[in-house]
Amino acid sequence: MGKLYLLPNLLDESLNIEDFFPKRVRNAVEEIQGLICESEKIARRYLRKFLSHDEMAKMPLTLLNEHTEDLGALIAPLKKGEVWGLISDAGLPCIADPGAKLVWLAHQNNIEVEALIGPSSIILALQLSGFDAQNFSFHGYLPRKEGELNSKILELEKKKGTHLWIEVPYRSQKMLDLLKRVLKPNTRLCVAANLTMPTQKARSQNVSDWKKDSFSLGKEPAVFLINAP
Amino acid sequence: MGKLYLLPNLLDESLNIEDFFPKRVRNAVEEIQGLICESEKIARRYLRKFLSHDEMAKMPLTLLNEHTEDLGALIAPLKKGEVWGLISDAGLPCIADPGAKLVWLAHQNNIEVEALIGPSSIILALQLSGFDAQNFSFHGYLPRKEGELNSKILELEKKKGTHLWIEVPYRSQKMLDLLKRVLKPNTRLCVAANLTMPTQKARSQNVSDWKKDSFSLGKEPAVFLINAP
Repeated sequence: MGKLYLLPNLLDESLNIEDFFPKRVRNAVEEIQGLICESEKIARRYLRKFLSHDEMAKMPLTLLNEHTEDLGALIAPLKKGEVWGLISDAGLPCIADPGAKLVWLAHQNNIEVEALIGPSSIILALQLSGFDAQNFSFHGYLPRKEGELNSKILELEKKKGTHLWIEVPYRSQKMLDLLKRVLKPNTRLCVAANLTMPTQKARSQNVSDWKKDSFSLGKEPAVFLINAP
Repeated sequence: MGKLYLLPNLLDESLNIEDFFPKRVRNAVEEIQGLICESEKIARRYLRKFLSHDEMAKMPLTLLNEHTEDLGALIAPLKKGEVWGLISDAGLPCIADPGAKLVWLAHQNNIEVEALIGPSSIILALQLSGFDAQNFSFHGYLPRKEGELNSKILELEKKKGTHLWIEVPYRSQKMLDLLKRVLKPNTRLCVAANLTMPTQKARSQNVSDWKKDSFSLGKEPAVFLINAP
């Protein structure tokens, strides 16, 4: 039986792989016979960090994204005994991308799955927040419509534990402004932006302190975390 | 102002650091002027993987565990400009250990905090499960008393998204037996044990398939995940 490596990607492709991946990742990329990816362009730039031009030219790529219907075709080579990798466009696969369905199918076909270590913006943000992480919930993207978004934030603020979510970069500043406006003064709010990048910034304080703060986000990718007393 | 590095630890100390940590971790350990740890014995074995005997002898260690009351004393050197590290006994600090309180205090004192990449059993288990991870909740340890534990499991099974928790190794098999008994046949259950170790095993299937399965856990450290349709 074949094997599926869940390979980490960088949170920003201009970064250095040695700074964020253990050397096992290089070994795995050198071992794979094909790569399942969200987009070919990003997959090629990823492989270029590890492989020679000739090795890259020989590597088959197949796409797994929201348009993919035939997951069975993706695991067919693994059922024949091949070793393939899976990457997402950024960070760790199978968290906020369609990779989980493929892993489920691999299990049903007794294909070995191994996950390699790399940067997870969820875990980094959680560590940097200083919030209780014995109980936490990740909510992906919150609703877009302002009324629904407001209600969702107030609902999460009432629940115990730490709650975190992501937002598309161009709405980061808007999300921060909204949180400062609707959350209670003694709720803790953390914003962790540009994680692993030289421009990384994380601030964690009560909403009352956020209101006095000029911290701005622009269109930077960010993770938002709240923890109410 | 000083700096606090959140340093990864291995999930099993017999493993090789190069396989699980990017090289940045070594650079950070070589830079720190002191280490905050959960237990001195584990901290010394950790440092031995990076430093010479002489370098180790000079490194001050301070304890942060459930008995620590004076967090202010721990960050005093950082307020004077020193660079310190924080580790937990296994895996990433500030997830299931008292480190989060220290990070919160560091933020209140404008001390820079940087989290380095390493193995997180939560994220690895989530990736290996093949369950939807756009919405997931980590619950730490569930209640110990059987009646409360049963109710908690059934409560989590009713909620949407993926739910995961840990158990002390000597109760792993008991947890698995209970889950097979109380969960609905079409609920998905994943058990990920001995993560990152040569003995790692992860199985993910419906409860009806678990009932036909002889997979046994013994006293192995495991993460349990459920996802109900």
